Amino acid sequence: MTDDHAALPVDGQELAAYVAAKLCHDFVSPAGAIMSGLDLLADPSAQDMRDDAMGLVTQSAKKLIALVHFCRVAFGAATTSERFTANELRDLVAGMVEGGRASLDWRVAEADFNKPAARALVNLAYLTVAALPSGGVATVSSHREGGALVLLGAAEGARARLKPEAVVGLSGRRLTEGLAGQWIQPYWLWLTVSEAGGDLGVTTGDGRVEMRARLPT
Amino acid sequence: MTDDHAALPVDGQELAAYVAAKLCHDFVSPAGAIMSGLDLLADPSAQDMRDDAMGLVTQSAKKLIALVHFCRVAFGAATTSERFTANELRDLVAGMVEGGRASLDWRVAEADFNKPAARALVNLAYLTVAALPSGGVATVSSHREGGALVLLGAAEGARARLKPEAVVGLSGRRLTEGLAGQWIQPYWLWLTVSEAGGDLGVTTGDGRVEMRARLPT
Repeated sequence: MTDDHAALPVDGQELAAYVAAKLCHDFVSPAGAIMSGLDLLADPSAQDMRDDAMGLVTQSAKKLIALVHFCRVAFGAATTSERFTANELRDLVAGMVEGGRASLDWRVAEADFNKPAARALVNLAYLTVAALPSGGVATVSSHREGGALVLLGAAEGARARLKPEAVVGLSGRRLTEGLAGQWIQPYWLWLTVSEAGGDLGVTTGDGRVEMRARLPT
Repeated sequence: MTDDHAALPVDGQELAAYVAAKLCHDFVSPAGAIMSGLDLLADPSAQDMRDDAMGLVTQSAKKLIALVHFCRVAFGAATTSERFTANELRDLVAGMVEGGRASLDWRVAEADFNKPAARALVNLAYLTVAALPSGGVATVSSHREGGALVLLGAAEGARARLKPEAVVGLSGRRLTEGLAGQWIQPYWLWLTVSEAGGDLGVTTGDGRVEMRARLPT
């Protein structure tokens, strides 16, 4: 636990508002796509596009459901009573990155996770995939080191990279320039690991980004 | 501003997680209804229910869009730069309560609002309507009192009431029993008003619930 909340760079209602803004931003895109598809379906002059419109609605609805399920664990889940299996967590991440350019190589050894560890894992896994905008392989693994649980996300691909906002967030710093929407989830991962008494390390190299979270158990 | 964040009963990542959980909970219901409608549409044995299914999908999609737009202002909107007109805010609340049992009587005199005041207003208005589970009239008004802006929500109806969790939240206390999902928005309203240096008062009587927020300007 961080003893002094006041020392955190972003906290209180501001932190919650950033998270809420991110969720709304992420939700509005598939929700808007559903509306577009429905408008097209209702347009008598676009009857030749019915199948496309129906496909758009269905795909966007699936995307939305995947998003809600992911966000519940990644951002919600306030208490610490619940546990999650590694397979559940893999499915949450897989649902989020389905259809994207990067592939997910899930090599998590741990069988189940408490809420803080589950939150750290799904955010770390998602951010590892997100570090591969042009595709590649995101390998997510876990192992024990002494008394600690180590979560490792390795992104390998042609243009593997972290956005500047992500670098700021992953180091637990307040954003001074750039998009808050690109910063909040990396900061949230840092905060999750820090609040659990652990630490987060990031290394970047040519075609490679690695995130490593160490959580005491 | 509250000087001492550490003195708040719920703060930091916990607060954000409650907000995220609430948003996910609210989003999952229309998103699930959209999926149900689509499943029905795809079922060859349910062709006689196509219109109903399509109606469910369309109505749920509209609900979802209204929800995202409301939540952006009610929970998101982290910075204080933006301003909102009273009409925009009324539309956000109206979109949320459409189709419900209670009616909204919007008598807001103020022409426009900064972000903290806008956040207070939409949450107060929504909670006023929510205090009328069996219908009635929710009157939302604003006036100036000395240097302060006063927002007033008066719920009048047969079974006007606040849930116990809402009473706890509106008084800025931590929830010790009951559903966090019923507590977080009332607490959020209290926090919004407190962080802006104002205060929030609640009175309840037979068939009447009144919420009054005073914000310095």
